[in-house]
Amino acid sequence: MSQSDRIWTAALLVIGDEILSGRTHDKNIPQIASWLQVQGIRLREVRVVTDDLTAIGEALNVLRERNDYCFTTGGIGPTHDDITVDAVARALGLPVVIHPEAKQILEQYYATRGGLTDARLRMARVPEGAALIPNRMSGAPGIRIGNIFLMAGVPHITAGMLDALTGTLEGGAPLLSETIGCWVAESEVADMLREIEAAHGKCQIGSYPFFQEGKGGANFVIRSTDTEELQSAVDTLCDGLATAGYDFTPGGI
Amino acid sequence: MSQSDRIWTAALLVIGDEILSGRTHDKNIPQIASWLQVQGIRLREVRVVTDDLTAIGEALNVLRERNDYCFTTGGIGPTHDDITVDAVARALGLPVVIHPEAKQILEQYYATRGGLTDARLRMARVPEGAALIPNRMSGAPGIRIGNIFLMAGVPHITAGMLDALTGTLEGGAPLLSETIGCWVAESEVADMLREIEAAHGKCQIGSYPFFQEGKGGANFVIRSTDTEELQSAVDTLCDGLATAGYDFTPGGI
Repeated sequence: MSQSDRIWTAALLVIGDEILSGRTHDKNIPQIASWLQVQGIRLREVRVVTDDLTAIGEALNVLRERNDYCFTTGGIGPTHDDITVDAVARALGLPVVIHPEAKQILEQYYATRGGLTDARLRMARVPEGAALIPNRMSGAPGIRIGNIFLMAGVPHITAGMLDALTGTLEGGAPLLSETIGCWVAESEVADMLREIEAAHGKCQIGSYPFFQEGKGGANFVIRSTDTEELQSAVDTLCDGLATAGYDFTPGGI
Repeated sequence: MSQSDRIWTAALLVIGDEILSGRTHDKNIPQIASWLQVQGIRLREVRVVTDDLTAIGEALNVLRERNDYCFTTGGIGPTHDDITVDAVARALGLPVVIHPEAKQILEQYYATRGGLTDARLRMARVPEGAALIPNRMSGAPGIRIGNIFLMAGVPHITAGMLDALTGTLEGGAPLLSETIGCWVAESEVADMLREIEAAHGKCQIGSYPFFQEGKGGANFVIRSTDTEELQSAVDTLCDGLATAGYDFTPGGI
């Protein structure tokens, strides 16, 4: 495998009873997934676990070992249910320490907001040896330790942290994708899709049905790191759909 | 542990490259989570894996063994990337067979829609011994084998399948929850929350910060299977917030 073919992978561990109760709809999975694609890193697996030291640690150790990067979201705030730092430190066999720069950031942030209480100081706790990830939205920084990145649960705070990390992680060729939308039952073009994928070894084709306005259709997503082969597969699919008499929408429906 | 204290758990395995690419925002996690709560079953973990036989099988075998129920979403359609049935059958060591009733349902459904092609017949394939889950939205049924439930990827089709399953799964006491919203930095009430949780052994309190209209606040969610203790914790929290001079909104913000 040449260096350019090396596939970089990441996993995401979502920590939060609020996702598992159905109360909160996760927005971090799609935002981190999209951001990783641009970095040339594939999100290969996601796990959502309860706010439990053992559950977090068990998942973390599997995910960090078999991926280049492991992100977590949630549980790094000031309240009693924020236990991500403790869980990660325990999983890594590291003590939890106060990070001096994090403490300074929080002192500054809370200087005009009631001061740095004990609860707020919790947000300066990190596994020993960790670096900080800047948070431009609110005081408390994210945390990097080895290949693990602890991000916030609140999506727009995590968005700011991702911005700060942009371009800093090594990745491979970005996975490109093109989408063709079509008002067709996917079962009618299943053979066509299979044949086009078979003829384009560097492409994967996904078929994602939907129902809108009482009608059924599907988006066909072709993914590849190879620009030419991607374009060839797109052209073949468009020709095939046109020949079979279907209207289609480049870019997707 | 008395029978009424028995906690029933479920896991969800989301199968889909489209979620991991960030292209599609999952809606099945919250809908299945909420439905399970009403059945008295806790969603304890979620995994999202790629459309890969080994990845699906590995996750399935862990999840089904350590939970009472295991749901999957996605990959039961007619196209080449729909491999959930094959993955589940392989993980269970079962052959894949055509389910006669599923074939009959599909024949009827497609009678006026171009007939039952080979691709469409794929949707009648099940692991041997499986039962069907009615699908009132489109032809292809869901599949139940042992404690595993294979649901559709399209959320409103899965919604119909969940309706069909309502009341058929054994569960425990439903987990009740009450939410109090407050325009307060959660760090200001972290001690109060910790103390209230400590004083109410049958309750868990979650704190979920948000930013809206340029202001920060948090929703405090108290969960319990015990109605009286839940109410006591809610009352204590409301009293505490009022005494500290915060406005709060029962039901959440």
